Amino acid sequence: MRKPVIQTSPLAPKTPPEISKIAGVRLATAQSGITYQRRDDLMLMYFDKGAAVAGVFTRSSTAAAPIAWCRQILNDKSKIKAILCNAGNANAFTGKEGEEAVKICAKAVAEAIGCAPNQVIITSTGVIGERLPHENITPHIAAMVKSAAADSKNWHEASKAIGTTDTFPKAISRTAKIGDSAGTDSTITITGIAKGSGMIAPNMATMLGFIATDADLSPPILQNLLTQLNEVSFNAITVDGDTSTNDTLILAATAAAKHKAITRPDDPALADFTTKLLEVMQELAQLIIRDGEGARKLITIHVKGAAHDADAKRIGLAIGNSLLVKTAIAGGDANWGRIIMAIGKAGANIIPQKLAIAIGDIKITQDGKRHQDYDEKTLTAYMQGDDITIEVDLNIAQGQATIWTCDLTERYIAINADYRS
Amino acid sequence: MRKPVIQTSPLAPKTPPEISKIAGVRLATAQSGITYQRRDDLMLMYFDKGAAVAGVFTRSSTAAAPIAWCRQILNDKSKIKAILCNAGNANAFTGKEGEEAVKICAKAVAEAIGCAPNQVIITSTGVIGERLPHENITPHIAAMVKSAAADSKNWHEASKAIGTTDTFPKAISRTAKIGDSAGTDSTITITGIAKGSGMIAPNMATMLGFIATDADLSPPILQNLLTQLNEVSFNAITVDGDTSTNDTLILAATAAAKHKAITRPDDPALADFTTKLLEVMQELAQLIIRDGEGARKLITIHVKGAAHDADAKRIGLAIGNSLLVKTAIAGGDANWGRIIMAIGKAGANIIPQKLAIAIGDIKITQDGKRHQDYDEKTLTAYMQGDDITIEVDLNIAQGQATIWTCDLTERYIAINADYRS
Repeated sequence: MRKPVIQTSPLAPKTPPEISKIAGVRLATAQSGITYQRRDDLMLMYFDKGAAVAGVFTRSSTAAAPIAWCRQILNDKSKIKAILCNAGNANAFTGKEGEEAVKICAKAVAEAIGCAPNQVIITSTGVIGERLPHENITPHIAAMVKSAAADSKNWHEASKAIGTTDTFPKAISRTAKIGDSAGTDSTITITGIAKGSGMIAPNMATMLGFIATDADLSPPILQNLLTQLNEVSFNAITVDGDTSTNDTLILAATAAAKHKAITRPDDPALADFTTKLLEVMQELAQLIIRDGEGARKLITIHVKGAAHDADAKRIGLAIGNSLLVKTAIAGGDANWGRIIMAIGKAGANIIPQKLAIAIGDIKITQDGKRHQDYDEKTLTAYMQGDDITIEVDLNIAQGQATIWTCDLTERYIAINADYRS
Repeated sequence: MRKPVIQTSPLAPKTPPEISKIAGVRLATAQSGITYQRRDDLMLMYFDKGAAVAGVFTRSSTAAAPIAWCRQILNDKSKIKAILCNAGNANAFTGKEGEEAVKICAKAVAEAIGCAPNQVIITSTGVIGERLPHENITPHIAAMVKSAAADSKNWHEASKAIGTTDTFPKAISRTAKIGDSAGTDSTITITGIAKGSGMIAPNMATMLGFIATDADLSPPILQNLLTQLNEVSFNAITVDGDTSTNDTLILAATAAAKHKAITRPDDPALADFTTKLLEVMQELAQLIIRDGEGARKLITIHVKGAAHDADAKRIGLAIGNSLLVKTAIAGGDANWGRIIMAIGKAGANIIPQKLAIAIGDIKITQDGKRHQDYDEKTLTAYMQGDDITIEVDLNIAQGQATIWTCDLTERYIAINADYRS
């Protein structure tokens, strides 16, 4: 079968991000040769003194073998010592043999670093339904443990090793303050890496995200933050509406930084940390959209004035998943009727006469019909850009949501119809 | 803007259907010039002695002006005297002016034939958000009423006039028996016409269907049949998961045929009629899929063994709406992992170990993994065909559903991104 020609997405950031290392985290990569040649496809994230960890996972009812493993060990409440990731094989729909492969990998990592297997998170991404050849993975583990280093270079290599059909690596760092009542703040660092293009890659590229921080936070507080912020970051992006069997987002805290003890997720001392963590998560999520297969335009959909946030999100996703909206934007076509259609099919509480839609700064609707100032030429000119904003105000109540997506081009079809890696 | 080059779908039937006329129904067409040149775009269906009518309509909350009109007049329980349809302008999101345009058209038809306006069904299909120029429609109505004829040639012209981006006209006829207890059967005729390609045409082509019969059935019985059979015909097809503002399906009975009086929808004497009506509806629905924009393959998805029918339909639609499944089929790629993904995201009750998936006659899964006899070459060969069947047995209970869809090709994107008629 032909191989896809990988061209960097035109929406990729022009300059690579500066990545900060995280005290207590070391990383290594290696080449298993399972699917990819001439590149690393294994990533080990090693926490010297362990880490408090939270995770969110795919809601798929055909979730891959590593997902069940992760859910179980996070439930065990042991400190996590390492995360292993392989790219190229999802270990999904692989039956009992797939479950065994997860255990064999976890045991190999545990033996190499001297911990229990249930302290090792296992993640996979790649093709579904093929046996995971763990015998190609385990021989590399001892050397990875030995060579793991904290340098930002290692973070960069890690962000590349977890990719499948990604056309550029995705990493973001931020610093934040965690304060105490005396006004003394400690500086905390957060670094995250991610892979994926929604579900749009030839073999169903999964969304994987690994975020580490040196903050000293307990698993329940981390889980609370992660679950809440995930709704407005990774769960607010859509490329094609498909859901992976392997989606995984991990937040790990090494406690290497010293700061005021935090016992509640709503402690005001966490405000800046929460803001910066959200920035890391939203920027990683947007990088995934910027790498959507065939994408040439980033689309931001703001919905406000809804009966509640869930209705706003429903409308945002109906617009963001509509093939007709996404193809119109791909073609630079001022076909705003398709947005009306998408709003109508969302099943949300709306009053057509109150709908105020704007694309960019251009007002589209009023009183249940086209706005009196609407000029198709102005809208068509705006639609030629590569950063399109759609604003929908339902004018009912205060519910709101923001969704990010990309346009749908012929290249998406070409890649997904013609190629399999 | 460039105009689309209309090529007949490669999935169009090789021979045009034989259309039977219906006693009590006369048809006429005309050219309004609103959107299309050199073709008729107005259709009048005239019931000499009135008709009992049932309807099902889009669930969109931004439904077009004619939808509210139809719902209201069907509620009035007057005998319907005529149906008017215009193609090229949806009269959707057109505010109060749009509602007025519907009333003006209904009044014009009512005056021409001598009935009340609420005996006239109005339907529209085409571009959203543009004022409907009713002044281009009403001048044609008197002549249409005068020239309306019952011939099958008029049915054929009508099936063409209601089309927008359709590449072939869609019409089906069947005869049925409605029996009495003495074993005496009367022959009934059913003829239906439809337009649409799901929601996939440049300006959101609507699904419209008009079915007429000479049976003598009351509106409640017709409504019961239509609602029930619609679920397994027009509501079991998907091209791109989008929902029109204008979807309308009308069933009209002229009572020109004499048969046993029917007072209940479950009267055994209706069995053959119900079967034949379902055939008409399913065949029209499949013709719409065969005209899906860019479609090169018809995909039939059978789901059985589900906890209940709703779960089976949810899974069928998740597969049928998955871009990754539809692009894989477009490319003839044996990428069955995408079916696993789609089943997983459906939110239905499943047990992965019990899933039995077959594509054509080829068994794909067993015991939560790939089937031992699976051979990719055999599946790849099957995937080159233009009629693809996917069978999913959940092996849980007796729920079942069948969904029809088409593949997703680059031509879909090209048409929807680059053109607006």
